[in-house]
Amino acid sequence: MEGEFEFIARRLRPLATGPGALGLADDAALLDPRPGTQLVLTKDAMVAGVHFLEGDPPGRIAQKLLRVNLSDLAAMGAVPIGYLLALARPRATGDEWLAAFCAGLADDNAAFGISVLGGDTVSTPGPMTLSLTAIGEVPKGEALLRGGARSGDDIWVSGTLGDAALGLVVLQGALDVAEPAHTHLIERYRLPQPRLALGQALRGLAHAAIDISDGLLADLGHIVEPSVLGAEIRADLLPISFPDLPGALDAAFSGGDDYELLFTAPRSQRNAIEGLAQKLDLPLARIGQMETAPGIRVRDATGAEVRPKRTGWQHF
Amino acid sequence: MEGEFEFIARRLRPLATGPGALGLADDAALLDPRPGTQLVLTKDAMVAGVHFLEGDPPGRIAQKLLRVNLSDLAAMGAVPIGYLLALARPRATGDEWLAAFCAGLADDNAAFGISVLGGDTVSTPGPMTLSLTAIGEVPKGEALLRGGARSGDDIWVSGTLGDAALGLVVLQGALDVAEPAHTHLIERYRLPQPRLALGQALRGLAHAAIDISDGLLADLGHIVEPSVLGAEIRADLLPISFPDLPGALDAAFSGGDDYELLFTAPRSQRNAIEGLAQKLDLPLARIGQMETAPGIRVRDATGAEVRPKRTGWQHF
Repeated sequence: MEGEFEFIARRLRPLATGPGALGLADDAALLDPRPGTQLVLTKDAMVAGVHFLEGDPPGRIAQKLLRVNLSDLAAMGAVPIGYLLALARPRATGDEWLAAFCAGLADDNAAFGISVLGGDTVSTPGPMTLSLTAIGEVPKGEALLRGGARSGDDIWVSGTLGDAALGLVVLQGALDVAEPAHTHLIERYRLPQPRLALGQALRGLAHAAIDISDGLLADLGHIVEPSVLGAEIRADLLPISFPDLPGALDAAFSGGDDYELLFTAPRSQRNAIEGLAQKLDLPLARIGQMETAPGIRVRDATGAEVRPKRTGWQHF
Repeated sequence: MEGEFEFIARRLRPLATGPGALGLADDAALLDPRPGTQLVLTKDAMVAGVHFLEGDPPGRIAQKLLRVNLSDLAAMGAVPIGYLLALARPRATGDEWLAAFCAGLADDNAAFGISVLGGDTVSTPGPMTLSLTAIGEVPKGEALLRGGARSGDDIWVSGTLGDAALGLVVLQGALDVAEPAHTHLIERYRLPQPRLALGQALRGLAHAAIDISDGLLADLGHIVEPSVLGAEIRADLLPISFPDLPGALDAAFSGGDDYELLFTAPRSQRNAIEGLAQKLDLPLARIGQMETAPGIRVRDATGAEVRPKRTGWQHF
């Protein structure tokens, strides 16, 4: 098994292509913020058996770890710069696993124009435990926040909801689905698509934004609460890939791991947002509106109230 | 047991006093770098049973996690700003443990003038696994690096060496020591003292610096290698708290967890560095010099070669 220094030299140094990484020769990374920008920092942790499956392809695990953090940057409207990685690995982890894990990072470094800035590798008697801190930049004062929604704002979501939660159920063997849905749902679980271009384009358009990691209702709650408002959404307007699958609507309401953006914007921006959907080739669905009455109400097309089964996912 | 959101609201939010933390209401922190500065980022991970003992006081574990990262900032000459925390905890972790852990963070936030910027809390079926990303700032172009040493430079270390390694042996029951050494060694293991004031004062004085986390010889290797030089050190000049304890010299050479600064500086700075020791009330020992011949040589006072037992500590 590779030792710590060998792992860093052989696997991580080739990924540390940015000038701030100092070739990973130093204790820390040095970052030169550009004038007029603010830095955005976010950190997520993942544990084998909790946030990913032991048998998931190592490259996909690496990409998911990175992308859930990039999704946080997307929700703030930030442009990603790089990241620091902490990896606590069981002693039995093979070199092939590490090579595949780092190949996944390399792929996404190229895809998103980022690089490793630093990190730490340790051994653990427990399950593989990963933590990543992503750094991005945003023009000063332009970051999208959760608490900026206003009454009357439209509520929008990107892409589709609930796919990843159903993909997990498929991987766990509790749902039998034919192709192409089978592969689509599993890939949605394993490989989030951080909506970076959308987040950056929403600066100046949206009043509030969040990425949906805990489920639509839970994350809408994270906009409603700091905005001191309420919301009404329409169940029949939720974008769902395979609405006939059992549990599809519940997954759309409360499934985790969507990593789509949920945002609010004034009615005056409807045309601009629809144009953005076309330009980015990314569906944007208008699913409700912000209201002054506190709480979140869900209705169907007839106006009747819908009561979703669960309201969210707690990681802890 | 507290859930994720309750833990964040009740325990972490009071620690997130800086403006960039956005009250932990958002996905990420926003940082306003000051003009003329560079940001320094570092990330270390710790696993229960590997990097700390299950029975260690939770507040001390929190402080150690924070301080090993602050020590990395100290080695770069940086001023700490804040940090992001990832905590993967076993389900059996009690609320009292978390309260004590956060009280340790609060103490050090006050001591070092920093605050929580963000983070993540998850559950794990394995041992408590912690990761922290610390952020500091340094005047542009003035960060101390490992690779800047020059031939003829004096080699200096702060404080004393090997105490923490002996403290671990005491805690493991393999070394019986009378007071006051008993408490001193254990505290040196549990509560590193990041040499921030020293690191900041060494900007413009030192050519190269590193904090000693893996042991003197291993970390001197991390200066020698990127500087493309060698070094000679004198065993009899190492600062050792209790030189008569068994293993004291080996612990000074190769024990981990010292978190003292090892730095090189030209002979012309001797007076300035001795003045600094007085001003900071921190012993600074001149233990050798950088040389052009590659490798690290250790000699005693007579000039005879000394062969230390181990050369370092691998965390991985």
